[in-house]
Amino acid sequence: MAAKKPLILVTNDDGITAPGIMALISVMKELGDVVVVAPDSPQSATGHAITINNTLFINKVQIDEAVKTAYSCSGTPVDCVKFAVNEILHRKPDLCVSGVNHGSNSSINVIYSGTLSAAVEAGIEGIPAIGFSLLDYNWEADFEPAKRYIKKITENVINNGLPEGVILNVNFPKLPKSQIKGIKICRQAKAMWTESFDKRTNPMGRDYYWLSGKFVNLDKGEDTDEWALDHGYVSVVPVQFDLTAHHAIHQLNNWDM
Amino acid sequence: MAAKKPLILVTNDDGITAPGIMALISVMKELGDVVVVAPDSPQSATGHAITINNTLFINKVQIDEAVKTAYSCSGTPVDCVKFAVNEILHRKPDLCVSGVNHGSNSSINVIYSGTLSAAVEAGIEGIPAIGFSLLDYNWEADFEPAKRYIKKITENVINNGLPEGVILNVNFPKLPKSQIKGIKICRQAKAMWTESFDKRTNPMGRDYYWLSGKFVNLDKGEDTDEWALDHGYVSVVPVQFDLTAHHAIHQLNNWDM
Repeated sequence: MAAKKPLILVTNDDGITAPGIMALISVMKELGDVVVVAPDSPQSATGHAITINNTLFINKVQIDEAVKTAYSCSGTPVDCVKFAVNEILHRKPDLCVSGVNHGSNSSINVIYSGTLSAAVEAGIEGIPAIGFSLLDYNWEADFEPAKRYIKKITENVINNGLPEGVILNVNFPKLPKSQIKGIKICRQAKAMWTESFDKRTNPMGRDYYWLSGKFVNLDKGEDTDEWALDHGYVSVVPVQFDLTAHHAIHQLNNWDM
Repeated sequence: MAAKKPLILVTNDDGITAPGIMALISVMKELGDVVVVAPDSPQSATGHAITINNTLFINKVQIDEAVKTAYSCSGTPVDCVKFAVNEILHRKPDLCVSGVNHGSNSSINVIYSGTLSAAVEAGIEGIPAIGFSLLDYNWEADFEPAKRYIKKITENVINNGLPEGVILNVNFPKLPKSQIKGIKICRQAKAMWTESFDKRTNPMGRDYYWLSGKFVNLDKGEDTDEWALDHGYVSVVPVQFDLTAHHAIHQLNNWDM
């Protein structure tokens, strides 16, 4: 590890009061100087949204004795990263970590997740970044078993860096420490949600809907994050934000256009 | 083209009243049966956000004589696609088109864009999809020069299909018809935004911020969408939603974990 302590930006999408971010901060304090900028309210499933049609409010908060710089922000997780880099730090941090999310961000969830989108934003800005998620939506979820893996993976990123244009999507199975088998580097499973809309009528007689859905894994591969998590492993997927389907370019060039 | 008219779902992120979606509908009417489900208010830069912590309201609207099924939705563009497929059509449409966006969605903007995220959502659900954008943020932008290319590209998708897991991101230069040189299949340019936050004080004395930024193209390649648009071409980028950085898996497997 570098002699100088790395500057680590911590954010999430469940909001600055979530137990998951406190678990992440507790590990990051051992590895570097920690700055926290996180949403002031839950921002799950906000994807890579940014706030351009509304104003942003920022509040300095005290969340941990060892963390001198902590702010809550009225915006999305991606707003938090942009604000932290440009208005608080006035430099790139050495690392950005996001989470620990209360709930899975494996496979296609990487696209919907505010937690992962914060890490992707850091990656776009050239900052090594990791998103962490635990497969337990409970507010009282047990983050203790994840901590040694969070530390191990983060140390590796600090020491080795990440390939250009790549961030990490790390998910933890909901298992006690003794049953986690280790870490697997994986690809994103092919999966989707089948939606159902719960239709209700409000007191004024107007119909409204709640979006809900069921996760469907369409992928039988044993090299996927879904397989690893189902079999007791921590999944690590390298994620890129060059979305070009390079393999399709040749085929499209044969079209009649 | 198939004998039976294809069922085409049209959406956008600028909202159902935007001139851009009317331009898109006017072309799609010539190619198939059109259903419109679009946000009831502007949803620019909402990325792949979905509405899980709030309710959704839907209104049937009349926007064009030839379009019998049109709804506005209080949610995001991705919500619109999910709602259309599950609650209105009760089947997958044959095609989903999103836009025409008022403003560029080239290069890294694909990640922030609600317009493109709607097309990506359709792609995840197995529906061939295209996002269209014009490099003109003006509400009175001239969509006429784009129409022949919208038709050409859409006909190709209807006739040839798209590779699995791929949707198209199409951007039009802001040029008169005579100066558009044709279509180029491109890769996403490496680019980012450098942010600046405009700090103000509200009448109650509290500070707030507006996010603004400057687009920076970091890519000198002549095979990118930015290059094509700068040189008078319509850019077509095949976009995938398997975000795995497959090339990085081997390197990560050599880490000490």
